[in-house]
Amino acid sequence: MNSRIIKLREAMRQNALDGMIVTNPCNIRYLISVNAEGTLLITDKENIFITDARYIEEVQAKVTIEDEISIYDLVGIREQEYITFFEDCDRVGFEENDISYAKYVKYKARYRLRDMIETDNLIEKIRMIKGEDEIANIRKACEITDKCFTHLVNFIKPNMTEREIAFEIHKFFMENGADGLAFDTVVASGENSSKPHAVPTDRRIKACDIITIDMGATYNGYASDMTRTIFMGSPSEEMKVMYNFLLACQKRVTGKIRDGASTKEISQGVVKEFDIAGNYTLIHALGHGVGVDVHEIPVISDRSDYILKQDMVVTNEPGIYITGKYGMRIEDTILVNKLSSEVLTKSSKELIVIK
Amino acid sequence: MNSRIIKLREAMRQNALDGMIVTNPCNIRYLISVNAEGTLLITDKENIFITDARYIEEVQAKVTIEDEISIYDLVGIREQEYITFFEDCDRVGFEENDISYAKYVKYKARYRLRDMIETDNLIEKIRMIKGEDEIANIRKACEITDKCFTHLVNFIKPNMTEREIAFEIHKFFMENGADGLAFDTVVASGENSSKPHAVPTDRRIKACDIITIDMGATYNGYASDMTRTIFMGSPSEEMKVMYNFLLACQKRVTGKIRDGASTKEISQGVVKEFDIAGNYTLIHALGHGVGVDVHEIPVISDRSDYILKQDMVVTNEPGIYITGKYGMRIEDTILVNKLSSEVLTKSSKELIVIK
Repeated sequence: MNSRIIKLREAMRQNALDGMIVTNPCNIRYLISVNAEGTLLITDKENIFITDARYIEEVQAKVTIEDEISIYDLVGIREQEYITFFEDCDRVGFEENDISYAKYVKYKARYRLRDMIETDNLIEKIRMIKGEDEIANIRKACEITDKCFTHLVNFIKPNMTEREIAFEIHKFFMENGADGLAFDTVVASGENSSKPHAVPTDRRIKACDIITIDMGATYNGYASDMTRTIFMGSPSEEMKVMYNFLLACQKRVTGKIRDGASTKEISQGVVKEFDIAGNYTLIHALGHGVGVDVHEIPVISDRSDYILKQDMVVTNEPGIYITGKYGMRIEDTILVNKLSSEVLTKSSKELIVIK
Repeated sequence: MNSRIIKLREAMRQNALDGMIVTNPCNIRYLISVNAEGTLLITDKENIFITDARYIEEVQAKVTIEDEISIYDLVGIREQEYITFFEDCDRVGFEENDISYAKYVKYKARYRLRDMIETDNLIEKIRMIKGEDEIANIRKACEITDKCFTHLVNFIKPNMTEREIAFEIHKFFMENGADGLAFDTVVASGENSSKPHAVPTDRRIKACDIITIDMGATYNGYASDMTRTIFMGSPSEEMKVMYNFLLACQKRVTGKIRDGASTKEISQGVVKEFDIAGNYTLIHALGHGVGVDVHEIPVISDRSDYILKQDMVVTNEPGIYITGKYGMRIEDTILVNKLSSEVLTKSSKELIVIK
């Protein structure tokens, strides 16, 4: 059996679960390395992946005997057969944060389960600690992202649109070995930069614009996530002061990231610094885990309560947004080590002015 | 109030609902034309959109007074306030196919609802019938897709990889006025074509390959969906026979699409034809609705039970897949009219051989 399913079975034992229904596509990808719609059942007797005709050939080609996963075509399963899967299981877990209410009701009836037990991110918690191969993949995704940033600093010229820049990022990723985009790229210029989740528009870059670029690639299914804020022509004094404050703040956070650090305490530190410096508010989480999904646990915010552990990979992304004027954000993807951390996105964070 | 919310309120009245919690992002986009995470509440007193600081500036800029939508920042809402939203509502509906089980439990407590009523695709059913503006947008998305296909027939050369072709499609869409991709493009060549949902690989196109291209653009938020199967160099006699059979079959389906047609009967016809012609099986649905989402209801399959209506937009996409050998699919996006239908994707379906 593959080592990730073994880990899951161990976690299930600790939670007194003898069965589990896995529906979250990221968790399925993590556990059995296939990219297919379907449901993974962990029963006391076997591991079962139920998929449909659109995917079955591909899944059968990828899964080996050593994986010990039985593959079923949805259409071929009789009602009676569904009942047998969990018949010897007392406590069957499910993913309450992923499954729809309608599917919950359907599965409860289909598998004849008296109860389904909420599992509170059981698999996501296993995913938090990355293995060597996972770190290598994230490292590679970050490398491609860094190369892309170097390219962009030369590529971006006045009068280009945000959409053109976003597309260039995608093109660069594809031509440099990435699987694709880890998420929808943000290229937010001028007044658009005050919106943290701005969708790239046809707005043209002009002199004195701030440009915030939030981008990430996937490599072998693993994500990177990096934001840089750069300036077209000379930034105002006000912008410079704010940028240098934000950068110092971001670096102090990186200095605190290590095994044993509290996500709440780190975030509270930033909230306090923001407040003292300029009555700024941290309007989004300070960071999040990165892996097969670009947004994973642990969340780093003053409302979260995780202790960072060695081999977690997280982002550090403070941002300041002045409604209707402009905003800025600086973000790295960071590997948590025993006594310190390693910044995996190595692009310069010094104030960059392009012309 | 905008006409779509008025329609929803009318549908709610018919279902004796005096409140509704809308969580499906496509439905929110459809109802209030914003692209932001959040929850839309339709109460007896008002329309409320709850979002967070990442989106609030953009949402406030887009929503007008005439829309009659109150915008709330998640962080500013006190527990007591949540309780007041539905306090005069007896029956509050929710989207059981979208909301997670965990959110269902949370919302039930948050809004102090004794029951939450399943609404069985209430909004999706309204979305099935397209307005003039929606049809115009889909038409435009189809036009861009057709132009792209014309371009591809000249562009594709031996030795190109599937990924390169998929990327060219994205590039063409971006350079020709589309918002972006309606879904992950399928470019499946040679033996990969036997997998209906193949992800583009680094496999290089070679002589005698079948190439299946399933692509769609979005324009003003509305999707197109088209598949063409083309041939690199001369196809075998077996392939030609199969292609011509599939095309005849696809055209017969188009001939049956009109107001009043049964999705079940149309599909049963194809299943029967497949069986008689070559013991083929229709392994996926024959079609689906297209709109703000590329996969909507009505589903056209022998297990579905819809009656097509004027101004629906649906796909017609029979496919044959021979495991380990090859496959082919032909798909159009089609507007349902009173007495017939109009094929909106107008690219040639004659057997195309490229060199």
